[in-house]
Amino acid sequence: MWIAELSRQTEVPVATIKYYLREGLLPAGESVGATRARYDESHVRRLRLIRALVESGGLSLARVRGVLAAVDEESQQMHAVLGAAHGALLPESIEASPESLERVGELLDDHGWLVDDQSPDRALLANALDALDRVGHPLDSTLLDSYLMAAEQVGDADVAHLPAGDRAETVEATVVITALGGPVLLALRRLAQQNASARRYGAVPTHPCP
Amino acid sequence: MWIAELSRQTEVPVATIKYYLREGLLPAGESVGATRARYDESHVRRLRLIRALVESGGLSLARVRGVLAAVDEESQQMHAVLGAAHGALLPESIEASPESLERVGELLDDHGWLVDDQSPDRALLANALDALDRVGHPLDSTLLDSYLMAAEQVGDADVAHLPAGDRAETVEATVVITALGGPVLLALRRLAQQNASARRYGAVPTHPCP
Repeated sequence: MWIAELSRQTEVPVATIKYYLREGLLPAGESVGATRARYDESHVRRLRLIRALVESGGLSLARVRGVLAAVDEESQQMHAVLGAAHGALLPESIEASPESLERVGELLDDHGWLVDDQSPDRALLANALDALDRVGHPLDSTLLDSYLMAAEQVGDADVAHLPAGDRAETVEATVVITALGGPVLLALRRLAQQNASARRYGAVPTHPCP
Repeated sequence: MWIAELSRQTEVPVATIKYYLREGLLPAGESVGATRARYDESHVRRLRLIRALVESGGLSLARVRGVLAAVDEESQQMHAVLGAAHGALLPESIEASPESLERVGELLDDHGWLVDDQSPDRALLANALDALDRVGHPLDSTLLDSYLMAAEQVGDADVAHLPAGDRAETVEATVVITALGGPVLLALRRLAQQNASARRYGAVPTHPCP
């Protein structure tokens, strides 16, 4: 297909597609003559992934570049791919207090989670706990345990639902579900809080009861 | 305390404090003479809340202003306060397809969740589902159910852990746990995915086994 059709199918403006091509985010099409190129389904798919990461995942183009590099890296083992996809989705620098890092280490040990000692996600969690400490609302251990058990269910379900077989498909699915599953979970948490609050404070539901 | 002490206790630069005062995010201190003012613990607390929302919650100052308005609103009932705090933390516009909005409505009905028909969080969830549809990885119903059950545990635990009694304290805790609990949950989900992946793909843990 020509670039106009690629634009129509993906709802991405032609100027934006050309920008992604110049920036190397989108592979070049097959040249036809000096000024035209043909594109295929792989371009449609890649463009949709870029847009989803930018618009729904809230990633910068620099971050998207890192994620795509993880998707395109062919030589890694599946478990390493998850690490690479996770790494590309991380903030650039994560500061965490030694106290919170230790709390995270003990939490993971207590629950027997297999997480590499060098995983930057330890610092990501410690940093989030530090933020609550700083604002004078340290996260209660019981509440943290509730979060952990809920996260375990979600993480198990995420990994169980990754497509088995085609490696490229699995990698893309890993990136997509990690980046775009988060907003689903957070939106559900807000709805769940409203439900819990309605039950606790006895708000009258808008729906008439039969 | 003088502004220098306020800056020292909160680690917020004096110039930034003055900016927040001019912008009305921080209430004025008690004037002492023409050019000096005294500040108290309420200023320390408010500054820490602003910094936590900006640095850890990733909120813009305009969004922080909305959250603080919800915190300061005295006349609302507790359940309405949760709605106001949630509303202030929402993106400015949320687009969602009618199909996903209907899927969300059915999901909430199926599980008997008490959520107002007008809650913008319905659109927030539908928007997140749309993003997965667009990128060609629609969220499987089984996986969505896993997310929902995990979110229910978290939402129940969140609301059960809100301090009972002092209203201002409860409102602030609601805002803080909604804004800063999200990053905790997402970091735990990443760690849980790594644990699940290590078990599924048989990666050798870095810790030596006894």
